[in-house]
Amino acid sequence: MIQFDEKQVTQGVLDRFAGTRDARLREVLGAATIHLHNFIREVRPTEKEWATAIQFLTDVGQWCDDIRQEYILLSDVLGVSMLVDALAHDHTETSTDSTLLGPFYVEGAVEFPQLANLAEGRAGTPLFSELTVRNSAGEPIANAEVDVWHSDAEGLYDVQHAEFGGKPSMRGKFHTDEQGRLRYWSIMPSAYPIPHDGPVGRLLKATGRSPWRPAHVHFKISAPGYASLVTQLYQTGGMYLDSDAVLGVKHSLVVDFPQHGPGAAPDGRQMDGNWYTLNFDFTLSRA
Amino acid sequence: MIQFDEKQVTQGVLDRFAGTRDARLREVLGAATIHLHNFIREVRPTEKEWATAIQFLTDVGQWCDDIRQEYILLSDVLGVSMLVDALAHDHTETSTDSTLLGPFYVEGAVEFPQLANLAEGRAGTPLFSELTVRNSAGEPIANAEVDVWHSDAEGLYDVQHAEFGGKPSMRGKFHTDEQGRLRYWSIMPSAYPIPHDGPVGRLLKATGRSPWRPAHVHFKISAPGYASLVTQLYQTGGMYLDSDAVLGVKHSLVVDFPQHGPGAAPDGRQMDGNWYTLNFDFTLSRA
Repeated sequence: MIQFDEKQVTQGVLDRFAGTRDARLREVLGAATIHLHNFIREVRPTEKEWATAIQFLTDVGQWCDDIRQEYILLSDVLGVSMLVDALAHDHTETSTDSTLLGPFYVEGAVEFPQLANLAEGRAGTPLFSELTVRNSAGEPIANAEVDVWHSDAEGLYDVQHAEFGGKPSMRGKFHTDEQGRLRYWSIMPSAYPIPHDGPVGRLLKATGRSPWRPAHVHFKISAPGYASLVTQLYQTGGMYLDSDAVLGVKHSLVVDFPQHGPGAAPDGRQMDGNWYTLNFDFTLSRA
Repeated sequence: MIQFDEKQVTQGVLDRFAGTRDARLREVLGAATIHLHNFIREVRPTEKEWATAIQFLTDVGQWCDDIRQEYILLSDVLGVSMLVDALAHDHTETSTDSTLLGPFYVEGAVEFPQLANLAEGRAGTPLFSELTVRNSAGEPIANAEVDVWHSDAEGLYDVQHAEFGGKPSMRGKFHTDEQGRLRYWSIMPSAYPIPHDGPVGRLLKATGRSPWRPAHVHFKISAPGYASLVTQLYQTGGMYLDSDAVLGVKHSLVVDFPQHGPGAAPDGRQMDGNWYTLNFDFTLSRA
């Protein structure tokens, strides 16, 4: 007979999901039920503790709006976003390591030509990037679509600057040339704390965790016939590499950004002060 | 060196929580991280599936307001509320089985004297309840505080009736007499569907699950020196006992509600039509 005590309640829930017509949904909900019940059995929350957990999950949902997604932030700080990414990009073929897309990606970015300056009119130390996109055989991929976005010297993205009035900056879309090459100007990004004025920030504070991310440049690269690549490049020796709040760092993505003094840049631009270069070869695996 | 791939990301999150000063919080978050990552490793969600999960969790939070707690509802339909309850009331001493408090409990209910009618002026089939509260040695507990609440013949609670204007009905607080006894009038409760116009309702629909709960009467009983008891009584042979949406049924809580015809009730009230009785002895364990 019916008896949903601590021994039978898990099977009771699985039985109720048994009629789910979508086999994948049935599999996922069954696994979610078992792992969630195992968690509860391990920690044996008091009713008060479970009420606190319910309130936290509610707060995270209520904090979300059109420009803030607190549940993605929670997934990020719990390492779940990185784990989902790692499992989803478990290629047998050699390719550049992927990492988090992050909350500041914008679809349909403005297209720029080669050698354009993404940070026209913005304060910051100039950065000249020279990138290639290749397949795992080392062959260049021409006309690959490359989205680039990053923070400014204050650690803020264009979408966080109200005074930009929605005008994109430090953000653009390019296409590689016949040699799979992409060259453009921008400014050096800066480290920044993830938004920490909400429930996820309370969690970080209660656990003594830092909200800071190391400085990085985001890339999203796609080409017909290849798996699209979402990744970030970090500067060797940069702050917060080991304590990245969202655990986004992989060592293959930590690279030198050599510094240069006044003089001529590779494209002939005359530099008055210090500037940096970033060189990187991206490898895409076949779709 | 830092490398948050699928092998190391779990330990990376645990290391970040290692500095949590509250030992219980550290234990709970560590266990949550491990079980959540195990779930992700088992089902290997695609990025699209994980985005769907994030949106569902967000929707559940956004659906909550002062009178609707969708996360408790989610906890209920996943059997987690029952599991937390079972583990929190794992007494060695004999006591009446506990079950869910539910969302319709109201603190500070109006006090009624013995033999009062909780459903004065409400349509429904009369129900005369005769209850006792005892300890595990069978001794009566005098002056125990007993909260009673239940739905009406339409399956609605007083708080769901806008036309009641906040006036409580089918709800009240009593104290047991010297014999640990409580006798009062009310009306028969009805089965009802849990609120299913939100994301939890979508989950039930997608999985072919019923939103219905069997008819029941709620009790919350407390007395100095005893663990307080939150439980519900169900009618033998009632609908939805085996398919209760929130898995709240335990067989020790399914009891007869004998039907009677016109005549004199135990307190001398003359009954014109059919009416029911409910007799039950509650047992509290020592705190």
